Amino acid sequence: MALLLHLSDVDENRWAERLGEKLGDYPIVRRGDAYDPADIRYIFVWKPKDDAFDGLDNLKAVLSLGAGVDALMRHPRLPEGVPIVRFVDDELSQCMSDYVVAHVTMHHRLYTRYRAAQAAREWTQLYPPPAWDINVGVMGLGVLGQDALKRLRPLGFNLLGWSRSPKPIEGVKGFAGPDQFDSFLSQTDILVNLLPLTPETQGILNYETFGKLRRGVLDGGPAIVNPARGGHQVEADIVAALGDGTLGAASLDVFAVEPLPKVSPLWSIENCYITPHIAAISNPETGVNYFSKVLLDHEAGKPLVNVVDVAKGY
Amino acid sequence: MALLLHLSDVDENRWAERLGEKLGDYPIVRRGDAYDPADIRYIFVWKPKDDAFDGLDNLKAVLSLGAGVDALMRHPRLPEGVPIVRFVDDELSQCMSDYVVAHVTMHHRLYTRYRAAQAAREWTQLYPPPAWDINVGVMGLGVLGQDALKRLRPLGFNLLGWSRSPKPIEGVKGFAGPDQFDSFLSQTDILVNLLPLTPETQGILNYETFGKLRRGVLDGGPAIVNPARGGHQVEADIVAALGDGTLGAASLDVFAVEPLPKVSPLWSIENCYITPHIAAISNPETGVNYFSKVLLDHEAGKPLVNVVDVAKGY
Repeated sequence: MALLLHLSDVDENRWAERLGEKLGDYPIVRRGDAYDPADIRYIFVWKPKDDAFDGLDNLKAVLSLGAGVDALMRHPRLPEGVPIVRFVDDELSQCMSDYVVAHVTMHHRLYTRYRAAQAAREWTQLYPPPAWDINVGVMGLGVLGQDALKRLRPLGFNLLGWSRSPKPIEGVKGFAGPDQFDSFLSQTDILVNLLPLTPETQGILNYETFGKLRRGVLDGGPAIVNPARGGHQVEADIVAALGDGTLGAASLDVFAVEPLPKVSPLWSIENCYITPHIAAISNPETGVNYFSKVLLDHEAGKPLVNVVDVAKGY
Repeated sequence: MALLLHLSDVDENRWAERLGEKLGDYPIVRRGDAYDPADIRYIFVWKPKDDAFDGLDNLKAVLSLGAGVDALMRHPRLPEGVPIVRFVDDELSQCMSDYVVAHVTMHHRLYTRYRAAQAAREWTQLYPPPAWDINVGVMGLGVLGQDALKRLRPLGFNLLGWSRSPKPIEGVKGFAGPDQFDSFLSQTDILVNLLPLTPETQGILNYETFGKLRRGVLDGGPAIVNPARGGHQVEADIVAALGDGTLGAASLDVFAVEPLPKVSPLWSIENCYITPHIAAISNPETGVNYFSKVLLDHEAGKPLVNVVDVAKGY
């Protein structure tokens, strides 16, 4: 029995060292080590190579770093029937909500508009309405969506939520499924995307969606905030919608190609606010505590937590 | 008996009409009308002229539009011993807190830094710490300061408050008076000014103050947010502090001279975010309800509310 580490693009040495401290006697092996694949009970992955799971016939669980598992779901040889545990992290939730609150309030307060006025040394008074006049719609009501709503509520906004299946949340007007999507959009001034990336949600942030958002409350037009995945957004549609006023402003933290290519027109759009995929990151400290607990609890006979529903894709 | 309106720079006609609807039989007169000054029991003022109070020997109260009364306190012939009622307005409080939350979260999330990176098409990942690592210090714990703290609390920030005299607020580390000012500053990453403007607070946002703020938590240096009064800030010191890194960023809604002169160096400082005194405005709708209730309640024998302490100046 052993845990195999298969972490690309992060400091695997550091993870090995810290997990070793927490796991005590439980053996940890790495790709370069000599080991029998049949002994591997757990594999801890980030950006696994195509051969990552080959020969691991006695796996009890795949432990996946990161809150989103969309990339892992597309792995060509992901073993069937092995539970996948994704990362749920208080710090990641806090940072994501920090980002969401900062960008929702920024657009409510017409940040990009005032920044343009400042560049022109223009003193033009325009008073944003109080928060209670603004409808904020959150798509995706998982751990991150619920935490963002919990933070936005005391600020006084009207809150709406949309998810695949109905999820009643106190103080939030709920919408579910494709049938209620248009109704949700038509009441939303600031749209926040915290959906998982699945074939159904791919490209959901498109021109047609933007055209259905509520107009007339936010000066300049409705706004979108996307800290989820680049695959959710049709970037050419965002450029068009920001250009013709279908959207008043946008905050994007993720992109179809990252780093965002220098030639992307998004960089130079005044009312588009770009951050380089920094909304929230998995913290090694909390990650070590989380995954070592998952493994040891499971070895002690407890059920796995935060297991991905492979049929749903998240 | 009558109410005299003396409102400059606002639509006095509209106020007269709406107050008339609410006050019923209670007479309202205006500066151009024929009336005996001795009949005036209440005067409702905004930017009163030097002769505004002359001959009003039977005044029961001065009703002052606006949350701050610093300009009124400097009136050369303000009648002594007549209570002054200032405006307290849920909508004004909400809008001020909207502004404060938007600008505190903006600086926490390094907005001006990322905006500069975007202009250079630079993809440099830098992760802001979670809100629980950030200390937000609010100066001034009146209605507006308390409301701002109430909104900031659920976001996860550590909160500090400083006021003239001790004001215990749940979840807020309290500091009071000049003796505890340095200690308050040394623990503050983002400084929010909601003080009344008095001789003691004039120029409190100066280079010496900025140099005492906590360093090392916010990348680039501590930040200040001033939606109170231009008289609180020494603008040359802000320019110097933003230039040499004593401050990492600033949001200013108010200025010594408004509109901010085109020649001000503040306009072109990258990490200074300027808005044209739009944080919060007195809403005529709620103002009419508020001041008509103040007058009618007082006529019915009830005590006046929100009376200015002239000795303190607010």
